[in-house]
Amino acid sequence: MSNNFSSLRINPARLRADFDALAQFGATGDGGIHRPSLSDAHLSARAWFRDQVEKTGLEFRVDGAGNHSAFLNCAAQPVIASEAKQSPTSNVEIASSRKPLLAMTPTLLLGSHLDSVPNGGRFDGALGVLCALEVLRVVKENQVALAMNLEAIDFTDEEGTLVGLLGSAAIAGHLRAEHLQNPRGGRDAWEQGIARAGLIEKEFLNAARPRESLGGYLEVHIEQGKRLVNARKPIGIVTDIVGIASYRLTFIGRADHAGSTTMEDRRDAAQGASAFTLATREIVMRDFPQCVANVGKMEFTPGAFNIVPARVIVLFELRAPTADEFARLDAALIERARIEAHRFGLELQIEFLGRHAPTPMSEHAQIAIRAACESLGLAYIALVSGAGHDAQNLAAVCPVGMIFVPSVEGASHSARELTEWEDCVNGANVLLHAALRIAGQPNF
Amino acid sequence: MSNNFSSLRINPARLRADFDALAQFGATGDGGIHRPSLSDAHLSARAWFRDQVEKTGLEFRVDGAGNHSAFLNCAAQPVIASEAKQSPTSNVEIASSRKPLLAMTPTLLLGSHLDSVPNGGRFDGALGVLCALEVLRVVKENQVALAMNLEAIDFTDEEGTLVGLLGSAAIAGHLRAEHLQNPRGGRDAWEQGIARAGLIEKEFLNAARPRESLGGYLEVHIEQGKRLVNARKPIGIVTDIVGIASYRLTFIGRADHAGSTTMEDRRDAAQGASAFTLATREIVMRDFPQCVANVGKMEFTPGAFNIVPARVIVLFELRAPTADEFARLDAALIERARIEAHRFGLELQIEFLGRHAPTPMSEHAQIAIRAACESLGLAYIALVSGAGHDAQNLAAVCPVGMIFVPSVEGASHSARELTEWEDCVNGANVLLHAALRIAGQPNF
Repeated sequence: MSNNFSSLRINPARLRADFDALAQFGATGDGGIHRPSLSDAHLSARAWFRDQVEKTGLEFRVDGAGNHSAFLNCAAQPVIASEAKQSPTSNVEIASSRKPLLAMTPTLLLGSHLDSVPNGGRFDGALGVLCALEVLRVVKENQVALAMNLEAIDFTDEEGTLVGLLGSAAIAGHLRAEHLQNPRGGRDAWEQGIARAGLIEKEFLNAARPRESLGGYLEVHIEQGKRLVNARKPIGIVTDIVGIASYRLTFIGRADHAGSTTMEDRRDAAQGASAFTLATREIVMRDFPQCVANVGKMEFTPGAFNIVPARVIVLFELRAPTADEFARLDAALIERARIEAHRFGLELQIEFLGRHAPTPMSEHAQIAIRAACESLGLAYIALVSGAGHDAQNLAAVCPVGMIFVPSVEGASHSARELTEWEDCVNGANVLLHAALRIAGQPNF
Repeated sequence: MSNNFSSLRINPARLRADFDALAQFGATGDGGIHRPSLSDAHLSARAWFRDQVEKTGLEFRVDGAGNHSAFLNCAAQPVIASEAKQSPTSNVEIASSRKPLLAMTPTLLLGSHLDSVPNGGRFDGALGVLCALEVLRVVKENQVALAMNLEAIDFTDEEGTLVGLLGSAAIAGHLRAEHLQNPRGGRDAWEQGIARAGLIEKEFLNAARPRESLGGYLEVHIEQGKRLVNARKPIGIVTDIVGIASYRLTFIGRADHAGSTTMEDRRDAAQGASAFTLATREIVMRDFPQCVANVGKMEFTPGAFNIVPARVIVLFELRAPTADEFARLDAALIERARIEAHRFGLELQIEFLGRHAPTPMSEHAQIAIRAACESLGLAYIALVSGAGHDAQNLAAVCPVGMIFVPSVEGASHSARELTEWEDCVNGANVLLHAALRIAGQPNF
């Protein structure tokens, strides 16, 4: 990369104006936002994004998966695409990734998502999209010529109100018809959402991009934890995204009158579910210090004061940074669920709901982010991401990297979400310089 | 009582035909019934009861609380009512219980209730109402002259879909306007229920009966536990009804991202709620062998796989047979809730929802039931009722007694509810003979 560009910086006032404008869509009045995927608030935020893109003179694009993008044709000249290679971590054949007849200039994707969890915060996703847009503006207004084009992308349904990591799965060619038949938010919510957005289900399945068009993917995101704050470092460079497995466990006992049935005679599903919930925490803290587990919900049946619970459904997930810990933690927790059920005379039904394997970030992307931090004089630490991100899907088809900025008090998925403004600006500048390094080389 | 009546027995075939007919209303197809208070199924069952009463030539009555009765004027002559006395266990002034100008013949109430818990069984409540109706038929067809009139009563909302022990509270003069303002089933369900039944709220408050009109109350009910089956005895004579206290406990932590927040940093409301749930069982089994406690439901907020639970509401109740154990168990469990909340860094909100004090049954009623068992050659044991019953309310204003029959496997509030037919017939005959003994004396 030319030294001419080392003094480039994003425009903090412009980024701030964007941030404040965007935070109005779905604002909940307590500093948070409520923008579930393809809700009216989310679609309003997307319409606002489109306006900004077009005002800036960037090209606005929407693909079959409803991903919204600003596109900047900044590659100096087409490069000759090498034959697309299957990533060893991908088991997917992408029809459109076959060797093209014509050269194709790769595009470096920068982005995140504009949807939120229910009653979420202003930073999660939104910050990454706005940093990406700002990087394109800076490159455009400085007429920087690169080896790759740039695209600032807002992925559809990252948070999983409907499906989860949806837009990136479609682009990467991972999405299958069956994923849309039984979406985690329910089929009705899915159909209503795409109808509201004017999208068509089968187009999601046709949205895979030719692999040779994907030059890489970089994302700025809030850490959603306290490690950067505790380490007093402004930047985290993600080394891996944890694997996630989720389960629905049903502890099954027997409904009895809670007054006239002795304690000894009960088969109380609440006892097994409660013992499992306490055990998950103990096992993780004692034997798996790099991992986490969460019982996010219990549902009691019949659920009356005076009836011994016959069934308790436990919604739980576990996360681990490496394949080895992932497998061992999974086995330890499921075994413990069986033990607790047996101890209280209960049956146990185990429904496995899905899994994302642990995903390492590209070594080259990490090097580029480190170099960007060093050129900007910003301290950094390496981190594992405990949250899932669209980079997981794209890792199978292109080099990916993630830049974390500090979360005050580690707050996330909450109105309390906060990143100091200086840290947001630092993240945007790291994204700019990492992107310039990567897109400056035709075969990064 | 004349020895002429010692050979009287209820008609098993007639009782069985009633039982089978009644079990059709709200039948759930698995042998159970679903007749929540003032639901369509419950009102159909009540209409059927009215038909039976009128076919038998008994007088049908409905009071302001919607209690349905068969009335039999079988008292040989009016007795001179003594001045109504305030029961020492009652703190209630009953306007209509002032000394009457005219003599009033007391009525012995026999009965139970036709409503059920959601997805309950055929026996709970229904058996007691039908046994009472059958006793009136036998007395009527044998033209037995007694010192009291007899009334077979179906109390409104015993199970508490709306308020709980409602019809008996109204008769006893315990019901207050505030009980109907925030009913446990919610105000909407209450308003819809009474509208469906054609009842008027203020009439519930005017349904208290003159105390001198209440000669006593007897009820046949299934045991809802295993003690009679284990003891191989056909009849249980209730000595006390346990005290019940119920609470809504809210464990309050903090919603955090379940992937990016370390286990150490969490304030997970599920941990406190689960530890409390396990502790209730341990405390009761170790220190309070005559008592029970139940966590019947937990409600998680926000309730997602990937969010640490910020709030868990625990619906729980405790029961104890004596005032001393009641107070000590209550204190021990609430103290433990505080300890578990503190251990996991949580706040605890304690909402006390109500309490029924432990209620002894009348000594005289127990003597009459014992004498009835002996004259019928039926073995019995003395039992504490772990369930609440309308007799609790009436105990403050007249002598009360309860007759338990065996529950197969102790099943209750469930489609599995079963009492062998021979045991039902025995219960009805004990009710008949206990009623003849009590109603045979003008001042029992």
